[in-house]
Amino acid sequence: MANVASSRERRIVVAVDESEESLSALRWCLRNLVRPAPGDGSGAKDTFVLLYARPSPPVYSAVNGTGRSFSEDVTTAVDMYGRDLADSVTEKARNICKDYGNVKVDVKISVGDAREVICQMVDKLGADLLVMGSHGYGFIKRALLGSVSDHCARNAKCPVLIVKHREA
Amino acid sequence: MANVASSRERRIVVAVDESEESLSALRWCLRNLVRPAPGDGSGAKDTFVLLYARPSPPVYSAVNGTGRSFSEDVTTAVDMYGRDLADSVTEKARNICKDYGNVKVDVKISVGDAREVICQMVDKLGADLLVMGSHGYGFIKRALLGSVSDHCARNAKCPVLIVKHREA
Repeated sequence: MANVASSRERRIVVAVDESEESLSALRWCLRNLVRPAPGDGSGAKDTFVLLYARPSPPVYSAVNGTGRSFSEDVTTAVDMYGRDLADSVTEKARNICKDYGNVKVDVKISVGDAREVICQMVDKLGADLLVMGSHGYGFIKRALLGSVSDHCARNAKCPVLIVKHREA
Repeated sequence: MANVASSRERRIVVAVDESEESLSALRWCLRNLVRPAPGDGSGAKDTFVLLYARPSPPVYSAVNGTGRSFSEDVTTAVDMYGRDLADSVTEKARNICKDYGNVKVDVKISVGDAREVICQMVDKLGADLLVMGSHGYGFIKRALLGSVSDHCARNAKCPVLIVKHREA
């Protein structure tokens, strides 16, 4: 018998965002991929890395088209909103993991385009699996940039699991 | 605690073909998704459905462009070759499963375009997961028809796991 189900620790990256789709993908993944803790006390356990890609803060010119200058307060407020959203999403995702008990969770928030951030992080962490919803990141952005999941399925350097909302 | 890792029997469809990619995807899936048999004697165990999509037999007109008629032997020979290939691939895949021990395997061979056959079979079987390599079905066919895995990731009615050859 060559290699019965691997018992080494795996690093499973789950891309989460503010969409219900991505949280559904997380639930599916927890229901189906969490393995019972090894009975030999070795403590080896999978780590679920919750990865949130926060868009880069918008860059405004000092004076806009109408000749009015942007206050620094506006850019600070937009940036703060982005940070709060990231915290709120990752907190929600972390709570979902708690419902599944014995799960080792790590949270990463990276700034940049979701497609690049996810592929880079997968590479950097040496992930064993990337899990994502199929319809995250909003209709307009998807229409403009193409699907984030399509991009990652092609470019991420690990197996990619795509979970559609209706299945989770 | 809402729902610790589901223990119900799952039906995992693995699309196999003559490429090494698809067999690598099968190995990855066996290494990572096979769960230990339940200790309560309930016998509930996942089923791995090895699905091979066999191209439809070619349809030749009785008389070809040069005016020469095709012998029925030719079409029969091509069809026989397709059947032998299907048997050979599924046998190889079945042997890979044997290496992983306690795995319930079912083999399905369906005739038609791989993209349609796979999505239809996933639907018909009520699959919990579809696993496939990213580069099966040959370069030329992929260039002409688009990637089979892209199509299935978008259209299959279950989560789709895409495993690239280099990872398995």
